[in-house]
Amino acid sequence: MKSTGPHELRKDPLLGRWVAVLNDSLLPSEYVLPSDEEREKRCIFCPGREEETPPEIMSISSCGDDRTGRQWWTRVIPSLDPVFQVEGELGRKGEGMYDRMNGIGANEIIIESPEHFVNPEDMGFEQMARVLTTYRDRMVDLDRDPRFRYTFIYKNEGREAGAKFSHPISHLASTPIIPKRVKEELDGAKRYFAYKDRCVFCDIINEETRAGSRVVLETEKFLAFCPYASKFPFETWIMPKKHNCAFQDIKPDEIEDMAGIFSIILKKLRVSFAVPSYNYYIHSAPNRIPRKDHWHTLGEDFHWHLEIMPRLLRTSGFEWGSGLYVLPTSPELAAKHLKEV
Amino acid sequence: MKSTGPHELRKDPLLGRWVAVLNDSLLPSEYVLPSDEEREKRCIFCPGREEETPPEIMSISSCGDDRTGRQWWTRVIPSLDPVFQVEGELGRKGEGMYDRMNGIGANEIIIESPEHFVNPEDMGFEQMARVLTTYRDRMVDLDRDPRFRYTFIYKNEGREAGAKFSHPISHLASTPIIPKRVKEELDGAKRYFAYKDRCVFCDIINEETRAGSRVVLETEKFLAFCPYASKFPFETWIMPKKHNCAFQDIKPDEIEDMAGIFSIILKKLRVSFAVPSYNYYIHSAPNRIPRKDHWHTLGEDFHWHLEIMPRLLRTSGFEWGSGLYVLPTSPELAAKHLKEV
Repeated sequence: MKSTGPHELRKDPLLGRWVAVLNDSLLPSEYVLPSDEEREKRCIFCPGREEETPPEIMSISSCGDDRTGRQWWTRVIPSLDPVFQVEGELGRKGEGMYDRMNGIGANEIIIESPEHFVNPEDMGFEQMARVLTTYRDRMVDLDRDPRFRYTFIYKNEGREAGAKFSHPISHLASTPIIPKRVKEELDGAKRYFAYKDRCVFCDIINEETRAGSRVVLETEKFLAFCPYASKFPFETWIMPKKHNCAFQDIKPDEIEDMAGIFSIILKKLRVSFAVPSYNYYIHSAPNRIPRKDHWHTLGEDFHWHLEIMPRLLRTSGFEWGSGLYVLPTSPELAAKHLKEV
Repeated sequence: MKSTGPHELRKDPLLGRWVAVLNDSLLPSEYVLPSDEEREKRCIFCPGREEETPPEIMSISSCGDDRTGRQWWTRVIPSLDPVFQVEGELGRKGEGMYDRMNGIGANEIIIESPEHFVNPEDMGFEQMARVLTTYRDRMVDLDRDPRFRYTFIYKNEGREAGAKFSHPISHLASTPIIPKRVKEELDGAKRYFAYKDRCVFCDIINEETRAGSRVVLETEKFLAFCPYASKFPFETWIMPKKHNCAFQDIKPDEIEDMAGIFSIILKKLRVSFAVPSYNYYIHSAPNRIPRKDHWHTLGEDFHWHLEIMPRLLRTSGFEWGSGLYVLPTSPELAAKHLKEV
């Protein structure tokens, strides 16, 4: 935490995309890509070292909080190297022809397991349900801050996927703007709804169920499938079958159902690839106060979902320059493999 | 070249983005990320092996083409593993709720240097001018095919940047659609022009020249700078100071000027980073027949440029899920470093 004030958000005048400029400014020699072999000598996310982390925000525990005999299942702490800071004003202003604001928001770490070497999907569905409950509770809490426009949860597994730690953790970020990728989804869903008077995600669920060839797994309440026009090979989405725009509204029985399908999909990916590097993230409706005002319009056209992105390829100048992605494995064959494995 | 017909292009119904689905379909075990240490045992791009490559499309040579004593400076061949194939119909059609077409287009490899271990920027400005001339000539030629909507040039340097070969090469792709990233730039530039009646790129050149803090190098005809809201740290753009929408129109004196500034920027990046992995690509106005019809509207609001992206970080679920990028080094400090090095 070298930073001495909020980092800066800047808007690209061409693409309308915000980027975060850190005020610690690394020198060229400080950029080193970590290798898979490197492991931390000492992990502060492991039980017994709770006092070495920043103050805990919440936890799910089974036997109290006595600091000595304590046993927690999940634990949330502030990020060690936050891009966004909670305190401060937005400081929106122009800078020449450009636009900037302060990096006000939240960055939290969700410790998904007390075991350094055991992922939640390997601890039984109950542990995955605790992880999902932790996600929901933090999102609901952060929705209350009127400065934050969006909150999202993401996970980096493996060095190729940008992971910096080997303990099973995921991350949360609340941002004072709606991030570009999310805005694109919201705009796309709105355009579709305006034309068809139907939710594009509900239509996708119907279409995938009808076609069947891209479905990996279906439970009572969720569908897991490889999207028709995936960005990455073996990309898999998990979507509630019943329309709902916000993950924040997920009910306990839905969490239980999702914990099962999510654990199975992650295990299938792990069995399929020798070194499983992947990212996942939840896309939910944006977070606005007073929320109910926007509920009716947002609620109809957006549908929350979780996207899992295996990182099997390195993106090249082709993808960065064009935004056109190449899938060496078709979504149909990926789904077939994941279904059978 | 395992493929047995054109690959498929599919459109994401949510984001409007096309992806290419290859019909060779790799199995999970076939995904292996190459390491920096791996080198090809035998390079077919080196002189003397011209007959081992697919038939040459063009070359710039200094002493004829006699196959034995031949000396070429740059050489263009079809891609060894093309995503797009030249022959065939577009085959646009619906598939359930989705949209698809055949992967008709062109993929070419531009061999930038006859020397396996010497990049064009190290062979003097003349060699870089030959590379730029080759780029232009291929783009002008491919513009003539009415099935192709867009042609772009890109380069992958280093394994982290997606390079598969170690010989200095760059790539060309002609696509039957305007790729999403390019369309976003065109749309953004059009919106800006509609509001201000000025080209956003010309405004950026004026603003950067005025501010000065992000300029790396300026020549008579070009400006090299680190954009205000870069996507990656040390990202550098090279832009012609005089308004022009199409790289295809570049004149010999501009090529000469650009060869100098481009070579110097690439050398500066190489001196700055131990293992220089980067991508670059040229964004030019789309390619339509009859082109002149669209010239006046497209010509005013778009401005061709070259973007260089050092690959110093691995993108994580944060960037993929949000589209919000984090710069650990500010564009001002990056420009200062690159200016001084």
